[in-house]
Amino acid sequence: MLRRYAYAMVDHWADIISTEFSKVEDTIMGALSSDNKELDEMCKYVISSGGKRVRPAVCILAYLACGGKDTSIPVTVGAGFEILHTASLVHDDIDDNGEIRRGRKTLHKQYSLTKALVAGDYMLVRGYRCLGRLPEEPMDLIIKAAGMMVESEFIQKDFEHNLDVTVDDYLEIITGKTAMLIVASAVTGAYLATENTEWIEAINEYSTKIGLAFQMVDDILDVIGTSNTGKKIGIDISEGKPTLPTIYAMQHPELGQEVRDIYSRVPTDADVIRALDLIRLTGAIDQCYTKADEVILEAIDALSVLPDSEYKQSLIGLAKYIVRRNR
Amino acid sequence: MLRRYAYAMVDHWADIISTEFSKVEDTIMGALSSDNKELDEMCKYVISSGGKRVRPAVCILAYLACGGKDTSIPVTVGAGFEILHTASLVHDDIDDNGEIRRGRKTLHKQYSLTKALVAGDYMLVRGYRCLGRLPEEPMDLIIKAAGMMVESEFIQKDFEHNLDVTVDDYLEIITGKTAMLIVASAVTGAYLATENTEWIEAINEYSTKIGLAFQMVDDILDVIGTSNTGKKIGIDISEGKPTLPTIYAMQHPELGQEVRDIYSRVPTDADVIRALDLIRLTGAIDQCYTKADEVILEAIDALSVLPDSEYKQSLIGLAKYIVRRNR
Repeated sequence: MLRRYAYAMVDHWADIISTEFSKVEDTIMGALSSDNKELDEMCKYVISSGGKRVRPAVCILAYLACGGKDTSIPVTVGAGFEILHTASLVHDDIDDNGEIRRGRKTLHKQYSLTKALVAGDYMLVRGYRCLGRLPEEPMDLIIKAAGMMVESEFIQKDFEHNLDVTVDDYLEIITGKTAMLIVASAVTGAYLATENTEWIEAINEYSTKIGLAFQMVDDILDVIGTSNTGKKIGIDISEGKPTLPTIYAMQHPELGQEVRDIYSRVPTDADVIRALDLIRLTGAIDQCYTKADEVILEAIDALSVLPDSEYKQSLIGLAKYIVRRNR
Repeated sequence: MLRRYAYAMVDHWADIISTEFSKVEDTIMGALSSDNKELDEMCKYVISSGGKRVRPAVCILAYLACGGKDTSIPVTVGAGFEILHTASLVHDDIDDNGEIRRGRKTLHKQYSLTKALVAGDYMLVRGYRCLGRLPEEPMDLIIKAAGMMVESEFIQKDFEHNLDVTVDDYLEIITGKTAMLIVASAVTGAYLATENTEWIEAINEYSTKIGLAFQMVDDILDVIGTSNTGKKIGIDISEGKPTLPTIYAMQHPELGQEVRDIYSRVPTDADVIRALDLIRLTGAIDQCYTKADEVILEAIDALSVLPDSEYKQSLIGLAKYIVRRNR
């Protein structure tokens, strides 16, 4: 029975917390309301553009899988993490001068840079508010995560168009950029439910791995595209960002040199198209999927110390979903 | 004796907490350190450019004036408020594309917009960290203050070059923009020392008023200049910002129309020079000083319910110092 359920979970991992998910939405909307009509509208514009809500999901599921019963606090905390994540996207888009996010104009393109910057700050504040009065350990982790998010931006910039970048550098960057906030959210959920350090460590390991895999798949999708509307491909390449497909492609014995040449300069549009072709030709995408699959298996393995439950199965389903998006 | 001391306090209000002030500096430097060399350097660049440390001062003095004994927590919390304030200046400078702050190049001019934006986020996170685990009431106030800071940016933008702006609109803007973080800092200090609601309310009133007066004087200095190096005048006018000198000057029976004409358009350099002359000619600066003095007297009056102490005298000295800067 559990086995059959587990298969269904790959596609339906979120069903088990659908009540909590709708409370997360209500909490987010409430937290971001403002008497200032335009600010209110801006927050709603960006938060309702269809994120996957991975951070609230891992917070709530980790809480339940570790034996937690009353989901009201993890719902609020998970909403807080989603708001923090969204705030970081608003500032990232300003940073990269991104035009489209989730099929819509980015906030600073829709309104203005200065208003988007300030609205991002507002969301940061409101996000922290939702975290409330957490125990010392998760609070330390959250601050550490936020610091690492910023530091990883600096490291990433140092490696733009920089041929020295290695897979290890890449893993360091995406740990800060993507994984750490997912880790903070999941581990906070676990802390709220249990004092069992082995379980908390398992959730830490699991969430680190799914965070890394999540970003790897994002990098892949920048090369092969997605079924979402309005998502351009090749943006990372045009910005000279260090991504896993590019790093693997640069290592190819025959085609690697041309990829390196393009990566090391500010590319023309023709360069970007050529680089996308080269990356596909080198087999780098398969290498990336193999790596992401490997990491996801490690994530699932980490959960073995947790008692079996439908929530644990749901965490496994979420992990599998992450590498199967658009596949 | 107390009376003689009180006179000296106008210039020497900070002497009594000089030990705490140096601990505030150490705390700030520790909180903003980063393993990333450039981020570390950016934080130090901006924080060490000589702010007046009004927010830590009111936090520590309010705490002591309300009977607090061990200043270690208000020192850390005050440092947190100074960091939050500095973070907001970094983002404000990006917002306004400001070039000079406290006699130095602004952070985004010295480094880059994208790095300054992210460094500002880092400071926000680190600032919140210093606030630690405060009681519910001051924490609510801090979040409210941060929200109002953002909202006031929106209101201010709505009134740029807008002839409808009134003194009441102006007071609403500067309450959010400047006063509220000073209030949050002072009231937190009071909360940490006492449960006496009358005293806390007095500190609330006092800090609101000195915050308002502080911004009024800043607006005056944009017209008449300061003795600081590198500070340009007329920046607010060139940006069409609603300031008290401009609002008063626009009300002048003869010269007001020309001020209004300039305010309502994007001014040329010649317009800015002419507007500065007009504001001086209308007597608006005297009106502003009269208003600021009035507000400072109200601030000092509010303290009457507090028991006499050298700390209370120091708060009075700080209030007087605020309206005497560069006078």
